[in-house]
Amino acid sequence: MFEDAELGHKMSKEDFDRELPALREKLLEAQFALLESKRFPVLLLINGVDGAGKGETVNALHEWLDPRHVQSVAFGAPSDEERDRPEMWRFWRALPPKGKIGIFFGNWYTAPLVRRVLGESRKVELEQSLSTIEHFERMLTDEGVLLLKFWFHLSKKTQKQKLEELSGNKRTRWRVTPQDWSNASRYDEFRAVCDRVLRETSTGNAPWIVIDGSDDRYRTMAVGKTLLSALERRLAAAPGSHERSQAKPAPISVRDEKGTNVLRALDLGKVLAKKDYGDRLEKLQGKLNQLSRHRRFADKSLVCVFEGPDAGGKGGAIRRVTRSLDARVYRVIPVAAPTEEERAQPYLWRFWRHVPRKGHAVIFDRSWYGRVLVERVESFCSEEDWRRAYAEINDFEEQLVQSGSVLCKFWLQVSEEEQLRRFQERKQTGFKQFKITDEDWRNREKWGAYERAACDMIDQCSTEIAPWTLVAANDKYSARVHVLQTLCDRLESALGD
Amino acid sequence: MFEDAELGHKMSKEDFDRELPALREKLLEAQFALLESKRFPVLLLINGVDGAGKGETVNALHEWLDPRHVQSVAFGAPSDEERDRPEMWRFWRALPPKGKIGIFFGNWYTAPLVRRVLGESRKVELEQSLSTIEHFERMLTDEGVLLLKFWFHLSKKTQKQKLEELSGNKRTRWRVTPQDWSNASRYDEFRAVCDRVLRETSTGNAPWIVIDGSDDRYRTMAVGKTLLSALERRLAAAPGSHERSQAKPAPISVRDEKGTNVLRALDLGKVLAKKDYGDRLEKLQGKLNQLSRHRRFADKSLVCVFEGPDAGGKGGAIRRVTRSLDARVYRVIPVAAPTEEERAQPYLWRFWRHVPRKGHAVIFDRSWYGRVLVERVESFCSEEDWRRAYAEINDFEEQLVQSGSVLCKFWLQVSEEEQLRRFQERKQTGFKQFKITDEDWRNREKWGAYERAACDMIDQCSTEIAPWTLVAANDKYSARVHVLQTLCDRLESALGD
Repeated sequence: MFEDAELGHKMSKEDFDRELPALREKLLEAQFALLESKRFPVLLLINGVDGAGKGETVNALHEWLDPRHVQSVAFGAPSDEERDRPEMWRFWRALPPKGKIGIFFGNWYTAPLVRRVLGESRKVELEQSLSTIEHFERMLTDEGVLLLKFWFHLSKKTQKQKLEELSGNKRTRWRVTPQDWSNASRYDEFRAVCDRVLRETSTGNAPWIVIDGSDDRYRTMAVGKTLLSALERRLAAAPGSHERSQAKPAPISVRDEKGTNVLRALDLGKVLAKKDYGDRLEKLQGKLNQLSRHRRFADKSLVCVFEGPDAGGKGGAIRRVTRSLDARVYRVIPVAAPTEEERAQPYLWRFWRHVPRKGHAVIFDRSWYGRVLVERVESFCSEEDWRRAYAEINDFEEQLVQSGSVLCKFWLQVSEEEQLRRFQERKQTGFKQFKITDEDWRNREKWGAYERAACDMIDQCSTEIAPWTLVAANDKYSARVHVLQTLCDRLESALGD
Repeated sequence: MFEDAELGHKMSKEDFDRELPALREKLLEAQFALLESKRFPVLLLINGVDGAGKGETVNALHEWLDPRHVQSVAFGAPSDEERDRPEMWRFWRALPPKGKIGIFFGNWYTAPLVRRVLGESRKVELEQSLSTIEHFERMLTDEGVLLLKFWFHLSKKTQKQKLEELSGNKRTRWRVTPQDWSNASRYDEFRAVCDRVLRETSTGNAPWIVIDGSDDRYRTMAVGKTLLSALERRLAAAPGSHERSQAKPAPISVRDEKGTNVLRALDLGKVLAKKDYGDRLEKLQGKLNQLSRHRRFADKSLVCVFEGPDAGGKGGAIRRVTRSLDARVYRVIPVAAPTEEERAQPYLWRFWRHVPRKGHAVIFDRSWYGRVLVERVESFCSEEDWRRAYAEINDFEEQLVQSGSVLCKFWLQVSEEEQLRRFQERKQTGFKQFKITDEDWRNREKWGAYERAACDMIDQCSTEIAPWTLVAANDKYSARVHVLQTLCDRLESALGD
């Protein structure tokens, strides 16, 4: 992996000075075309050994490009707001929007590498991190992000020389920290781990670009040219034609469209008497309230998702949940059309931004499942896009759960007849009229398509850590009790009581 | 202030049950009208004595309203990201957008009150905080925020009873903390300080609404009705007709339009020879780089603003600054049209969101001064709006500086003739063509109006803590050196070297 980068590539001053003006002009042109088109974001990852000129090279890029549309971020120790959420949250929040260039130092490779080299993690943990990274990067590139992963390399000998040179000069001494020397003493281990990591994470859409860092001019020019050619290639290609991962085709369930399915198998005839409902509701709400005040909840969070046909009772169920919680603890996110800032980001960004801190709850009224439901049925996205969404959603949910979120997903199912009855009722009731629109009537006509999409979704995304709870909702009372009971059970088991 | 609220107002269960259904229906209707119109945001402040039912009342509001469009935030200890910025930053970031309702517990009144009661701040510091608050609230209401400030009160005796009741019941015991008892023991001091604070901060547009908290039903109904009537009143009024503060008319400078002014008085003939430029630039860039790495810079931040006529050389000057800094330290914000999310917030919100953390720099290419420049000249906002902006901007900048930002504002002035020369040059030069648009030519025709606006801006906003630096920019070399020299001087003096 690193053999070529240890050969000591050089570039003469003459060659550099001759090539630079044209490169700069072309880079600016490409950057401007990117900005105007707003077709995709560009993300550069900057990694490698200490002393290999990472900072200098990025400074040169900032100089060559229009710095108003480039943002470099160095991720140091996470802030407390970041520590309270999944590890990848800090990267999501810093992603560049379409049209802009982001440069990440100290990115998602840093912690897994350092932990492994220092012996703080086992091989299997490194493998897990790499798998998370691979999925994340696949999502980015599938979403159209132009991802360039630079690895700045130096041979052991050259690194020692560089560090000594820097330490020897009064003006650059500050740049060499004791940590750098300590890292250098582990060069061989570091090289071995990195070699392996780079091999495993060099994928078709996001290969590693290994740069010999020993010569300033060679290194900078190499990075500049790589960026330029990647930008030009993508800009010349037809919009949306970027290479996508070989979608692992989601396993397909063969279903008899006339026969039964998980939704039809629900017993929608269940009824709970009003009196029993009142008693059970009160008890469950009291319990949920207690659980949300449990001392161990300060280390957890709650994420609820409500999906299901229109008029399935999502709003009513949500109100029974929020009523049990203190207003300071929860937030309800009604999912509507994405804003302009959200449209400039990968699909899941607008949900990641609402991931709660520890001790808090977020309730999504409709959710990221829109991709595989309404967007699929209405052809708002391509088949490729919704097919890959299942895996992306599972990754997202896995990260939520791993970071301490209790994730509860409710599908509130009503029959076609019951939906019609509720629509008509809403038309009658003054203050409920706003709840019914032409779109609701149109969606009814696609009942079958929605049902099929829902069944696929449940098949694909009802995982062990984040199961779907299917709620028979023709009877509102029993549906609400079912939701609250499930929430209490899930929280109780997560809090270990 | 509190006399009425200590009378022990009560509401019978019969009255409550009779009035509630209509109130709820009307509240929902008003909330929906607000959401549809997206005309203004609603912000409720929740303050008062412990045990007076603040949490319960807000929980009731969440129950009565559609909780999907209400967000309650309890501000506890600030996060590290918040501590690194001006105190008000955490409130700015949580402001509800137009159409939504925000409820703030532990808001901007909490810290000043608590500090004063505990004797941690002096009277004069409390006065300063109140003045900041008054300006902030005036800005909010002038921007159209419907601001309702609720104070929940209890007499000393009733508070003691309530706390004892809560402590005595196994289910509510957790709600009374040792801090609550300790606060209760200072009831008289607390009441006296609060009485004064409420009097001083009860303004025409944002009066305090003092609620007797002793009876659940009375209290909740009173808050619900107050909210409803405020909402209905504002919704019924013509858009934009909300009461505005009596604009303190900014002092007006009488200027002879043909005579001199601060811009015309600049010596635009200054020229710096290329050789001298090279030397001085290199030295200044080296110095700026060192200053940005100064250990005390970790406790400061740098905010730069660049304004001036088109083709005044802002971009070039910014690049000379960024070239001196490490890419990981700074961010350039090109100010363009606000996004949808930004338009749903008060004017300054889109600048507050970019306020840097300590140890970082943000460079604004055009800025919040757009309000009193382009928006004034092109009538993008009302005269009232830009007139009040001077004071709002001064408040914003004062908070930046108080929190440790070094704020440098540069006006790069070129003559009409030099601007024309540069426009024509740009038309010739291939890769600079994109920098010139029809709008640039149109703006030239309004040279006089822009000049007048700039002179007013400098008069109003060149404060001692945040002076404008007027840069003669016909000669790019001397302009850049002027900018860098100023930056170095300001930073040096702030870092105390």
